Amino acid sequence: MTPTITAFAQSPDRGQGQARDMRVRWALEEVGQPYDVRLVSFDEMKQPPHLALHPFGQIPTYEKGDLALFESGAIVLHVAQSHPGLLPEDANAQARAVMWIFAALNTVEPPIVEWEQARYHEPDRPWHQARLSLLEKRICVRPEQLSRRLGAADWLDGTFSAGDLLMVTVLRRLEGSGMVEEHPNLARYVARGKGRPAYQHAFAAQLAVFTASQG
Amino acid sequence: MTPTITAFAQSPDRGQGQARDMRVRWALEEVGQPYDVRLVSFDEMKQPPHLALHPFGQIPTYEKGDLALFESGAIVLHVAQSHPGLLPEDANAQARAVMWIFAALNTVEPPIVEWEQARYHEPDRPWHQARLSLLEKRICVRPEQLSRRLGAADWLDGTFSAGDLLMVTVLRRLEGSGMVEEHPNLARYVARGKGRPAYQHAFAAQLAVFTASQG
Repeated sequence: MTPTITAFAQSPDRGQGQARDMRVRWALEEVGQPYDVRLVSFDEMKQPPHLALHPFGQIPTYEKGDLALFESGAIVLHVAQSHPGLLPEDANAQARAVMWIFAALNTVEPPIVEWEQARYHEPDRPWHQARLSLLEKRICVRPEQLSRRLGAADWLDGTFSAGDLLMVTVLRRLEGSGMVEEHPNLARYVARGKGRPAYQHAFAAQLAVFTASQG
Repeated sequence: MTPTITAFAQSPDRGQGQARDMRVRWALEEVGQPYDVRLVSFDEMKQPPHLALHPFGQIPTYEKGDLALFESGAIVLHVAQSHPGLLPEDANAQARAVMWIFAALNTVEPPIVEWEQARYHEPDRPWHQARLSLLEKRICVRPEQLSRRLGAADWLDGTFSAGDLLMVTVLRRLEGSGMVEEHPNLARYVARGKGRPAYQHAFAAQLAVFTASQG
């Protein structure tokens, strides 16, 4: 059975792959699972049919048979648990890969999202510059600690896992800020993730949606 | 084998159970797994021995035999997967319980943490009041959506699960703000969680650490 995911009909990032469907697409590509995509407008996301699927009115969602999920982290973990390729077989290594999923989404990402929100929603507030400096200070300690833990390794814990997949998508949000680039091993880590064929297929697929929406 | 977790030697919340070891203690109590606690000072958290265990220098951590984990969400999920009692047996229901873990930690909690940070770190900044209003507007949409989804049910999806455990601990961070209290079904949901014997044992255990530190 082919799962169906939802994605923005008009992604606010203009196809840069920052919307959270990218994470799910990438996971599905890694495990070789074809999928269908249903595009939803901002208006549709706030209407009862979509809210029945996703109570917080966001994307992505994932539907397969009787199962309907939201939360990109939960969907990626479910895909990883349902197919070989995104979690190690050893039980302890598997628990650590899941730990890196949570680390990406709960420790590294939240201050980055906060910084994006500040840049998007508050640029005309009198406090804007001072806030951005505070937020950047709070963000940048995480890439530094992560760089130290990664060291010379290719991936966070042994082979590539769903934890790396999510960490790379989170670090990509900092592209252009210099906060990843100042740690060469971390910059190479992100590049290594982006170089994977599955990433590239997923990226092309979400970009095609944006390109078509401009046609 | 008895697992060992870490917790604050001096919890900044003065034993109110808001530190993240509370989540792990509660999960371990729910499944009836005894545990040891190693207390760490703020200074120790930033030193190499603790950083080897937790690269971001936080608590809690979890050690059992060869396995060492950090991230409260990952630890609670691991406990839930290793013992009966915190995840339903049906595979789809299990995936949905995990989805609620991510919803609690990734969608509901981040703006709450941001609001706490603003109250803690920025009270003397000229923008403080205006920022708090903005943040409260961003937070309160989530309890409202969650209240709508919960409806008249006792728990988010069938029986009590690790998803409810984490959602209750996240909503507790709003205590006293009125943002949960204005949704009576959600207030009852939080009270239902806090009324569980396992919650109460976990709460008493973390409070005892704070009380002893004042002795």
